[in-house]
Amino acid sequence: MRHTRPASTPAAMSELNQSRIVHSLHADGISSRADIARKLNLTAPAVGKLVGRLIDAGIVSETGEMTSGGHGRSIGLKLNAKRYQVIGVKFARSLVQIAVFDIGGHLLSMEELPPVADENVEDCVEEVRGRIRGLLDEDPSIVAIGMAVPGPYLREEGRIAVVTSMQGWRGINFIKEFGKAFRVPTFIEQDARAGAMAESLFDSRIAGSSLAYYLVGEGVGLGVIDQGNPVDGNLGAATEIGHVSIDMNGTACECGNRGCLECYCSAVAIHTLMGRTNQGDHFPGLAAMTHKEACDLLFTMARQGDRTSMALLDQVADYVGYGCVTIVNAYNPAQIIIGDLVAQAGQPLLDRVKSLVSARALPQVRDHTEILLSDLPADATLTGAAAVAANQFLEHPSSLGGMG
Amino acid sequence: MRHTRPASTPAAMSELNQSRIVHSLHADGISSRADIARKLNLTAPAVGKLVGRLIDAGIVSETGEMTSGGHGRSIGLKLNAKRYQVIGVKFARSLVQIAVFDIGGHLLSMEELPPVADENVEDCVEEVRGRIRGLLDEDPSIVAIGMAVPGPYLREEGRIAVVTSMQGWRGINFIKEFGKAFRVPTFIEQDARAGAMAESLFDSRIAGSSLAYYLVGEGVGLGVIDQGNPVDGNLGAATEIGHVSIDMNGTACECGNRGCLECYCSAVAIHTLMGRTNQGDHFPGLAAMTHKEACDLLFTMARQGDRTSMALLDQVADYVGYGCVTIVNAYNPAQIIIGDLVAQAGQPLLDRVKSLVSARALPQVRDHTEILLSDLPADATLTGAAAVAANQFLEHPSSLGGMG
Repeated sequence: MRHTRPASTPAAMSELNQSRIVHSLHADGISSRADIARKLNLTAPAVGKLVGRLIDAGIVSETGEMTSGGHGRSIGLKLNAKRYQVIGVKFARSLVQIAVFDIGGHLLSMEELPPVADENVEDCVEEVRGRIRGLLDEDPSIVAIGMAVPGPYLREEGRIAVVTSMQGWRGINFIKEFGKAFRVPTFIEQDARAGAMAESLFDSRIAGSSLAYYLVGEGVGLGVIDQGNPVDGNLGAATEIGHVSIDMNGTACECGNRGCLECYCSAVAIHTLMGRTNQGDHFPGLAAMTHKEACDLLFTMARQGDRTSMALLDQVADYVGYGCVTIVNAYNPAQIIIGDLVAQAGQPLLDRVKSLVSARALPQVRDHTEILLSDLPADATLTGAAAVAANQFLEHPSSLGGMG
Repeated sequence: MRHTRPASTPAAMSELNQSRIVHSLHADGISSRADIARKLNLTAPAVGKLVGRLIDAGIVSETGEMTSGGHGRSIGLKLNAKRYQVIGVKFARSLVQIAVFDIGGHLLSMEELPPVADENVEDCVEEVRGRIRGLLDEDPSIVAIGMAVPGPYLREEGRIAVVTSMQGWRGINFIKEFGKAFRVPTFIEQDARAGAMAESLFDSRIAGSSLAYYLVGEGVGLGVIDQGNPVDGNLGAATEIGHVSIDMNGTACECGNRGCLECYCSAVAIHTLMGRTNQGDHFPGLAAMTHKEACDLLFTMARQGDRTSMALLDQVADYVGYGCVTIVNAYNPAQIIIGDLVAQAGQPLLDRVKSLVSARALPQVRDHTEILLSDLPADATLTGAAAVAANQFLEHPSSLGGMG
């Protein structure tokens, strides 16, 4: 059987050790089994077993004897990262990106679709299917596809429960549309949870096994890994910080709740906020812009010292900060990584978020919580989509074809 | 070494299978290994191994052959639950309870200390120590002590980071005060997380491995078990729903945040709220009452049809409901069990909470979320404190003395 878990969800992070070995070999070059065991804090038998599988799969080869410092001779291992590739797809709202990564998590190519509107969501699905088929036809070394979709994503059902400001996506059953559409299997994960996986695997600043990826983009989302386990919930709909209320009497949200965080600091909300303060065409061309372009304009003008833009950015940063305080109290991660469009505001945003967290979170807890901006080479969610696919391939190589 | 993990925290829920077997034998009486495997959805070898350990420890004995329906003959197993006992202690704010349970989680005796005030927190610690020593002297079959304390409890440090309306407790280092005070080891857990463990083990209505125990008592707390794993956070300070804001511009809380849920619906907040509407001594004797007595009066008067009390209770229930909506969006548990003092309001509270969740949470998610009132024979947190100790004993019997 080729498709054991088509259009399914990733394994627990504790099963990520093959991915971690692959990444370590990519980062460090030729290494011995002992080097890997030491670096990843794994036992020698565990590394031996996992490396054996990777060698059988042709992903890793032995290079012959190498001399390691004081430990005598040992066999070098090197990565054949390019032998297998994966496709990552990120669905946001108007933004859809498709990229090819090697199995070590490195970006090989990326394309962005034209902005999607509510009425052409179905065309977009068709377009994504077509482009993926094109990539698969060109390149036989692609072995799996990972997709990251906005939450709350109901994993058994294959649908998103609510997509603020673009409900068209609710009509799409991702499992039905993509589950059996290709010669390789497709795996689907909530966007920020995929982002947390990418940060955990590929960000060298991540020290422990308790982290949160805080996605502030066209939507607002969160992925939490707690002591090595992703917080999923019963239906896969946990950690929906975008729909946690910061004001029980606040703005009505399309989800039914009031005062949802997403209503205040998503790229969509920022675009709306800019429109409201756009007297005298302060933000030239705003109406015709995508949400991303509007945010970029705001951040650029704020950097150039425009007072209206600076004040608006401060306001947005405070909302991002309220969300951060909730993340600290609700999940107590060791590290919070802020990523996606709004993180492009950079240091001024981060500083203001940190100062709000200092004022509102418990000193004994926040002093042990590091807040960072994502600095992966590609967007964490897009990278995470590929990581979900790569991890499934590495865990179940024989079931996905191409190996065995 | 006797005290492997003194004053430590419980193992992951996945290690609870010995406790589950013990409880199953208590609930069902004499059973075969096959009966147990079927009921608990465990493999035959797993049950064989765990039962072997329980027999070696003298907790379970074989009763001889029994006939089970159609499967031929098999050996019956019975529980010697009374052979080992554990002490559970619940620290709330003014309320402190000490109870003795058998290893099957059944209450044998319970005592409540006189109400504690800020200035006599240290005397209370001394009193608890004395009473526990008395119990241990009387009864050599007590093998461990479990304590449940209000969160945010910093597990490495042994201290509570903030205790609204009774900061005196912050001065207590629980590990220092209790860690090595007794002839048996002491294990400490955040109160609601202990409650979640008790619900998971002992409430027959709990169907799956994703649940939340929502403690609405002198404080407001939450314990979440997600896919079998307790959500702990990096320092043990996760799931602090009491300090998740429901109004970013709301009441200033002692934790530094604004609009914390705990400021609106704890027993302390209810007592204050009653004081504010106590015109013409509507609630006779209110000022001299404990928080528990004040809540009991409110719920009684509401049941008797007093309009002021009914309106007040509705208001409180709405706040409890906002917390529930946050729990749904933040953790997506299959079941939420509301317990502690405020749950004594009963069905009217539950109905109003459910209706608020129906209005504000996503239909596709809330339709798969059951909301219940705790109905364990004793308070879930107190039961959970004992369960933490019993579980440690069952997992590491030889290290705790008395066995092996």
